[in-house]
Amino acid sequence: MDRVAVVGASMTQFGQRDEWILDLLTEAAQAAMADAGTAGPDVDHLYVSNMASGEFEGQTGVANALAHDLNAVPAYTARVDQTSSSGGAGVYQAWQSVASGASDLTLLVGGEKMTHRTTGESTDVIASLTHPAEYKHGVTLPSFAGLTARKYLTQYDAPRESLGKVAVKNHRNGVDNPNAQFQKEVDLETVLDSPVVADPLRLYDFCPVTDGSAALVLCSESVAREYADDYAVVSGVAGATDTHVVHERSDPTTMGGVVESGEAAFEMAGLAPGDVDVAELHDMFTILEFLQFEDLGFAEKGEGWRAVDEGRTARGGDLPINTSGGLKSKGHPLGASGVAQVHEVYEQLTGGAGPRQVDDPSVGLACNVGGFGNCVITTVLEEAGA
Amino acid sequence: MDRVAVVGASMTQFGQRDEWILDLLTEAAQAAMADAGTAGPDVDHLYVSNMASGEFEGQTGVANALAHDLNAVPAYTARVDQTSSSGGAGVYQAWQSVASGASDLTLLVGGEKMTHRTTGESTDVIASLTHPAEYKHGVTLPSFAGLTARKYLTQYDAPRESLGKVAVKNHRNGVDNPNAQFQKEVDLETVLDSPVVADPLRLYDFCPVTDGSAALVLCSESVAREYADDYAVVSGVAGATDTHVVHERSDPTTMGGVVESGEAAFEMAGLAPGDVDVAELHDMFTILEFLQFEDLGFAEKGEGWRAVDEGRTARGGDLPINTSGGLKSKGHPLGASGVAQVHEVYEQLTGGAGPRQVDDPSVGLACNVGGFGNCVITTVLEEAGA
Repeated sequence: MDRVAVVGASMTQFGQRDEWILDLLTEAAQAAMADAGTAGPDVDHLYVSNMASGEFEGQTGVANALAHDLNAVPAYTARVDQTSSSGGAGVYQAWQSVASGASDLTLLVGGEKMTHRTTGESTDVIASLTHPAEYKHGVTLPSFAGLTARKYLTQYDAPRESLGKVAVKNHRNGVDNPNAQFQKEVDLETVLDSPVVADPLRLYDFCPVTDGSAALVLCSESVAREYADDYAVVSGVAGATDTHVVHERSDPTTMGGVVESGEAAFEMAGLAPGDVDVAELHDMFTILEFLQFEDLGFAEKGEGWRAVDEGRTARGGDLPINTSGGLKSKGHPLGASGVAQVHEVYEQLTGGAGPRQVDDPSVGLACNVGGFGNCVITTVLEEAGA
Repeated sequence: MDRVAVVGASMTQFGQRDEWILDLLTEAAQAAMADAGTAGPDVDHLYVSNMASGEFEGQTGVANALAHDLNAVPAYTARVDQTSSSGGAGVYQAWQSVASGASDLTLLVGGEKMTHRTTGESTDVIASLTHPAEYKHGVTLPSFAGLTARKYLTQYDAPRESLGKVAVKNHRNGVDNPNAQFQKEVDLETVLDSPVVADPLRLYDFCPVTDGSAALVLCSESVAREYADDYAVVSGVAGATDTHVVHERSDPTTMGGVVESGEAAFEMAGLAPGDVDVAELHDMFTILEFLQFEDLGFAEKGEGWRAVDEGRTARGGDLPINTSGGLKSKGHPLGASGVAQVHEVYEQLTGGAGPRQVDDPSVGLACNVGGFGNCVITTVLEEAGA
């Protein structure tokens, strides 16, 4: 079977945007299609990764609206929702549409419009994904993160400062990403002295509330050169769930969905963690970067914090993590994030990352986490073409 | 490539249900898995067709919750939304998951919980799928239906009574479906004398607001006999959009998404409209049964009304339509409907339709309409096994 290629990618400016969801989706879609030298009428499958346009803006049917605005009718379209990993689920759906032969040219667009709501309202919409038994007790994703961070620091004797260094690193990377929500460095003292949100985590341990969109164009590798000289192939992609009730997990410092989806994606690609040159991890909270780093096999359990502490995950390190700035600095428009992760890996693999470019990577990985690890999609991409 | 088989199917009682969405989904899922002789731990992909659990119940993340409740973790899961055709979109997604090799055993569950909201509230949630320019002018799907019905009756010189006969026929079929919301006959006078909703359409021209769920189990045909002796194969499936702004369509009596998806599904199956023995059409409004009957090629444009008028689409006719009772009588829980359509076709093809059984059908079709034809999924199934 032909491999599935990514032949175009884009992301919009992330941050506080005045446009509504449909205009954000259209902006990213047009840019990705331009990148691939194609246009709406050529697309036959269009998927929209979006968690909650109905809740955030009272507007549903955005996939149909987008097909219309892109002049892609009669292309088939649907919305893919996997909460905060809707983007990764869209990547998996887009892969399936091409791999199954259903589509010759698939456009995937992920996006969310959130900042017109208060942070409390946004957090509550997101919290509606949790189990009602936990939700009714006031549990939100930030509170899970605080509990997990405390457990991790204690269990593995990791210094609080190591979490802060994730924020410092990812803000540093964001400085070189013109589409990042935050393009400014922060120092460790600022992070450690910021207001407590969910002890021990502080304001700078959390990603912001963000508007934005990202898009990919996918096709069979057999026709990839019609669209691009340099492209990337999705050599591995898999998704996996963990318990929906977070307190039922035997070890809160391990995310089963990351372990399972990572192993399956590596097996599909015929690769191992040691083959990865660059990765985007889902750093919605700083602690999550440690968990994914370990659960994907880049370090032993309890040792992931040392990698950032020693600078190994910085842009010049042996495994650069979140060169885009990550969710932490780039921002986290729910449905867009998993798509934007693959956009960054694509740019790195095709040499288009500009000042963020790492040295000639050939294998990249994106890990997109839904809920608090409730469902995770891991995608392995490889340099191809040219 | 192996064909994709449906090896188990179920639907719950449709109507006014006291359970919340997750319990409705679980009920259908368990029944479909029992039908296939399998259980949650064997499922590796789980898709949930649902339009608006967030808007209707303030609960998102239902796919993750269902994976948990079915003991299907670590199966991958996501929600598929294509408004009122979310069920059909789920069928297409499930087909892709098996056909691409991503899944060995896929469980698709569609459901919606609506009746705890008023009919006005439900209609407004559904209307949020329309184009804002039309929505802001107060246009809802029922009003589109009224305008289209007037146009159709005038343009093709069809009698008003022919629309009423769709309701009479589908209510007659519903009497024999123990899971239908309405299991009572209505006579033509009752339909024609019922209150006007959107002139010329009256109360009995409309489907009700409904709670319910339906489910399917799918796998490659190469392993279908592990689950069932008699099964059905999806020999054709395709989706297509039409203009999102309904008033931009040159001929409101033709639904482009039905035409395009139908032609593609027939081409994929290597079949023609004349090969179909039984079909479920999306009779959310009586007028839609005429449009789909024509746009799928079962009759010339403007002649579809004659088929019901002459009894050809009744259970004993040459092409029985909506033997389940259709959305009109069985009910229309948005995300469930497209899945329940395939459930009925599966039962007909495998000889399990009981008192609704038509004489030995070998080819069946389901047509699921999103919005007012904004996106349509057509599925062709064939008898297989045994």
